[in-house]
Amino acid sequence: MTKGRIFSGMQPSGRFHLGNYLGALENWVKLQNEYECFFSIVDLHALTSAFENTSKIPENIHNMALDWLSAGLDPEKNVIFVQSKVKEHAELHLLLSMMTPLSWLERVPTYKDKLQQLGEQGKDINTYGFLGYPELMTADIILYKAEYVPVGEDQIPHLELSREIVRRFNNLYQPVFPEPQAQLSKSSLLPGIDGRKMSKSYGNEIPFAASPEELRERVRLIVTDPNRIKKTDVGNPDVCVAYKFHKIFNKENVNEICKCCKQAEIGCVECKKRLAEKMVDVMTDMHTRRAEYEANPARVKEILAYGAERARKVAAKTMEEVREAMHL
Amino acid sequence: MTKGRIFSGMQPSGRFHLGNYLGALENWVKLQNEYECFFSIVDLHALTSAFENTSKIPENIHNMALDWLSAGLDPEKNVIFVQSKVKEHAELHLLLSMMTPLSWLERVPTYKDKLQQLGEQGKDINTYGFLGYPELMTADIILYKAEYVPVGEDQIPHLELSREIVRRFNNLYQPVFPEPQAQLSKSSLLPGIDGRKMSKSYGNEIPFAASPEELRERVRLIVTDPNRIKKTDVGNPDVCVAYKFHKIFNKENVNEICKCCKQAEIGCVECKKRLAEKMVDVMTDMHTRRAEYEANPARVKEILAYGAERARKVAAKTMEEVREAMHL
Repeated sequence: MTKGRIFSGMQPSGRFHLGNYLGALENWVKLQNEYECFFSIVDLHALTSAFENTSKIPENIHNMALDWLSAGLDPEKNVIFVQSKVKEHAELHLLLSMMTPLSWLERVPTYKDKLQQLGEQGKDINTYGFLGYPELMTADIILYKAEYVPVGEDQIPHLELSREIVRRFNNLYQPVFPEPQAQLSKSSLLPGIDGRKMSKSYGNEIPFAASPEELRERVRLIVTDPNRIKKTDVGNPDVCVAYKFHKIFNKENVNEICKCCKQAEIGCVECKKRLAEKMVDVMTDMHTRRAEYEANPARVKEILAYGAERARKVAAKTMEEVREAMHL
Repeated sequence: MTKGRIFSGMQPSGRFHLGNYLGALENWVKLQNEYECFFSIVDLHALTSAFENTSKIPENIHNMALDWLSAGLDPEKNVIFVQSKVKEHAELHLLLSMMTPLSWLERVPTYKDKLQQLGEQGKDINTYGFLGYPELMTADIILYKAEYVPVGEDQIPHLELSREIVRRFNNLYQPVFPEPQAQLSKSSLLPGIDGRKMSKSYGNEIPFAASPEELRERVRLIVTDPNRIKKTDVGNPDVCVAYKFHKIFNKENVNEICKCCKQAEIGCVECKKRLAEKMVDVMTDMHTRRAEYEANPARVKEILAYGAERARKVAAKTMEEVREAMHL
């Protein structure tokens, strides 16, 4: 018996970094042992901002699948699939669109923010599809009758809208869908190597796909206490980015590291070397799995095809109920 | 060799009247001999205004199929199908939505008009789906790569939008779609029996499904020259609604009728009797076909299933090209 069904998705919008992993994927790996999980690479959502150049989508999908499998998502335990391979997402999206007031979508707080934010980057995504983003997200979730959706704070209004749409459907027709609940995940916030938010656009990220060598190299570049010039100067861990990394990846030694830094018993180079080895160690299984899957892209394709098949079965059953409820 | 491919659809929004027949279906019956035609009962479009009560949809679909088959649409020559049975409509609609600027949809002239018009009737259809109406219409047409769409004047802006969307798609990805052209059909404008526009809401319609008896009864009620009180008064055909019917259904005798009326050689009752018999005569084949199909609803179901299967084949092929062009 599981605790219920979960749906979650990620846009295949380029290579994933360690911050993304800690922000969501790490949590998914835990959830898979307690819930029945549907994890989708939501390529249709990626089109809202990437419609002008879709050539990288296949590669991004493959890389995202590699990331997920490396992280330890089990393709037997979970239904892992690509959204566009299950046509029912589009079908349910269209049906829901007929009963969703335009104003419900227009008032989603992230809507105008994101338009403006991307507008400032010179990207015009003021499309019909982008306005319908939370509608498609709703279809994604309820197509599998998911009861829980692991989300960050910023997604809560989307989930509220989903519940509103579900209530409207259930009222107008038949009570087909459960109201999906947000499951706020407490994730560790990992800064970029320069201390700002980790982001590819800042060039301060550590790729989740980094090999042990690349990982060591990126860790070497992490910014430490700027006032600690010489090894004999005492350090202040509270302003040291490497220390933040220790707190996440090296919990068992973090007090020792803190003490040594404050007493100048360990230099920054050595401190980061220890961090790097610890991170490599923590990620050993992930590196092993990645190497296996990278050597066997056909196996990754197979896993996604198997997932799509399983997803389609559940989706088709839900759509039967939807069509019956709507007299279609 | 046909002259090209046509797509057209009608919403199954209740029983069809003779004005609807002359406005479109009569033309379709001619087109089927020259073009490769896809005729769709667009039930998904009907949801834009009927989402709150969908219980009549199955009956409306069946009746519309009866109307079409009675009118003489040949289910072998044409692909006759129900829109919602071909999932690719929803899929293409969703993909097109990603690249369609919101403003293109908002500026469609019929959009605000129809919102207001239905708003005045107490119907709130200000939904995401209704805004996307021309988007779905575009998907319907181009899914079959139709080159021509028989339309009335009011639909021309929709077709212009469809061409704009096609150009955008072809430019962004690959030239998958032809630009569909409007084919203005010259249809006879049949007034209602009271002389106003024929409309169910005025109660002045002649149902297309009327039996010969019902037809005679409705024709008997047609308004004639109000100044012609007695049979011996001379009549003015120009203000006579029955005369307008003669001009459409009784072309070969219309001059004779006109002369007799002006010289009071024929009374209004007799005039309308002749009209009714002529109309019954013109519609004999339609009445025969309707009786046959009415007695065999399973055959109608079969025809729609056969049409959906043929439509799906073409649609699936187009979607393959679309997915390849978009790298999905």
